Amino acid sequence: MHHRPLPMEPAMKKLINDAADLVPEALRGMALAHPELRIDLQNRIVFRGDAPVRGKVGLISGGGSGHEPLHGGFVGPGMLDAACAGEVFTSPVPDQMLEATRGVDGGAGVLHIVKNYTGDVMNFEMAAELAAADDIEVASVVTDDDVAVQDSLYTAGRRGVGVTVLLEKIAGAAADEGRNLSGVTEIAQRVNASGRSMGMALTSCTVPAAGRPTFDLPDDQIEVGIGIHGEPGRRRVPAASAREVAEMLVEPILADLDFTGGDGVLAFVNGMGATPLLELYLMFAEVSGILEKSGVRVARSLVGSYITSLDMAGCSVTLLKLDDELLRLWDAPVNTPGLRRGV
Amino acid sequence: MHHRPLPMEPAMKKLINDAADLVPEALRGMALAHPELRIDLQNRIVFRGDAPVRGKVGLISGGGSGHEPLHGGFVGPGMLDAACAGEVFTSPVPDQMLEATRGVDGGAGVLHIVKNYTGDVMNFEMAAELAAADDIEVASVVTDDDVAVQDSLYTAGRRGVGVTVLLEKIAGAAADEGRNLSGVTEIAQRVNASGRSMGMALTSCTVPAAGRPTFDLPDDQIEVGIGIHGEPGRRRVPAASAREVAEMLVEPILADLDFTGGDGVLAFVNGMGATPLLELYLMFAEVSGILEKSGVRVARSLVGSYITSLDMAGCSVTLLKLDDELLRLWDAPVNTPGLRRGV
Repeated sequence: MHHRPLPMEPAMKKLINDAADLVPEALRGMALAHPELRIDLQNRIVFRGDAPVRGKVGLISGGGSGHEPLHGGFVGPGMLDAACAGEVFTSPVPDQMLEATRGVDGGAGVLHIVKNYTGDVMNFEMAAELAAADDIEVASVVTDDDVAVQDSLYTAGRRGVGVTVLLEKIAGAAADEGRNLSGVTEIAQRVNASGRSMGMALTSCTVPAAGRPTFDLPDDQIEVGIGIHGEPGRRRVPAASAREVAEMLVEPILADLDFTGGDGVLAFVNGMGATPLLELYLMFAEVSGILEKSGVRVARSLVGSYITSLDMAGCSVTLLKLDDELLRLWDAPVNTPGLRRGV
Repeated sequence: MHHRPLPMEPAMKKLINDAADLVPEALRGMALAHPELRIDLQNRIVFRGDAPVRGKVGLISGGGSGHEPLHGGFVGPGMLDAACAGEVFTSPVPDQMLEATRGVDGGAGVLHIVKNYTGDVMNFEMAAELAAADDIEVASVVTDDDVAVQDSLYTAGRRGVGVTVLLEKIAGAAADEGRNLSGVTEIAQRVNASGRSMGMALTSCTVPAAGRPTFDLPDDQIEVGIGIHGEPGRRRVPAASAREVAEMLVEPILADLDFTGGDGVLAFVNGMGATPLLELYLMFAEVSGILEKSGVRVARSLVGSYITSLDMAGCSVTLLKLDDELLRLWDAPVNTPGLRRGV
């Protein structure tokens, strides 16, 4: 039943039926659109069609829905073996993660890729214990690349954001090459240690079950350092030019880690969901200009909406310091709905 | 210089510097992010890096900016050889189109793919005449797949919308196979004749140079039959469920062309720019349900934001009736920033 808004209450306009059914209905559509995947609608898990791949380390991730294409859109050869979908902005439960772990275990163990949010971390830990009781070897990597805040509403320590996309790609390539569980885990930890991110919002997102914007952001202000759930950021500032915004995002990243030298960086400009590609490319030009002035060489790039926050307008910047191994793994073929290259 | 909004005037929040520089600055970012392309910043043309391809029919398109990834994001092997970028929602000029035509002519002639908007049609016609004076053989196909309205603010006859994406892919594959200009043109015309689209908006877009929403849409209403520039649609209706919206879009399409039988259809659910992928997948499930009930078999699908209207929230549905040749050409490899498969 569609809920008709009360008069005078700002309506939430979304392409949904009942907010409570959004995630399962979207997964059903995804299953219809991607017959190459196997989607367990009961458990809300997106699997590679051929999972488990015998002898290969299995990679799973998962988290609250609303960040698409992350994570379900990154399931496929060269990236994840499975992804667990929680309700919007809500961690999946340990039973889902256990079921996904079992489903991708090809005998070489399973890596859990976890964004650093309290619920995700706790539930993945519990799932890892349950899997151990099943004699499945599990390792975990927790991403915590967001330099904006130390702790947040939903996190002890830094939040896991944009680096998660790059890590899923690079660790997926390492697993594809036949690396063992400790080898894949080492690569994954190296990616997280070498990456930093910072985001900003022009507008709030609206969680369907809440029916109203998560936060109020005046028409003439933007929020810098925002998380992917609309968690408060570092500060609100007057609306600024793309050039100024690029500086606000890149400077704290460069202050946190030395990105000069070596094999250059992968520069990732990510849209939060409602930002046109035209603006993201423009932002990428600004980010590139700052990096050039700072002596940081851009070796690879990614521009688009890959880790989103529903209908939030805004963007994030992620830099990943490359070495020749990470570069080669980034360039390896990948074939998922959200990222596809060289296959 | 960033324009600070006057107090009390609703601010336009976008990731831009000066609205007048948006298109060239975005093209500069695109050039930096995609070294495999060659971008002529002076003429605002995105070329394949290896254009012209000797002996292959060249394919060009173009139109107003603001619909990204269309058209520049569809330049590359298996799709377009070049795309001309106009200002936001404004046709490129004949000189750009002529320059693009010259740049992709590999001796086998050039096909112009034109969306049916008065300015685009007129300017591409003029460019074709200029190219003929250069002894370049040019053919044209005009897309007009939008069943919403007969004429519109910017069109005599139906508007060219979603089918353009599918046509660029399929005609690109035909050119790759070595078909001659009349062969590629015949395929392109067949795609346009076999496809129909209809769109809707939850919100207006905001053109940067205008600084305010193109149209007012009350919080409790949606606009059905909208074009990709915010042109008025068929009617405004109260905000409705995704299921009801899917019916409003699919029924006029099915009433306009018989999509039953044959080799099934390619069903394309497109986001207008600000609509989360989660909602698009949900819409795809609804569209699939209606098609199944109507005896239309979905053979292939495409779900995502491919022909957008800046930051408009909403979606469109395109159906393309397939035969075995169109199906094979759709499945052929393609390698562009916006669509990549099997390469």
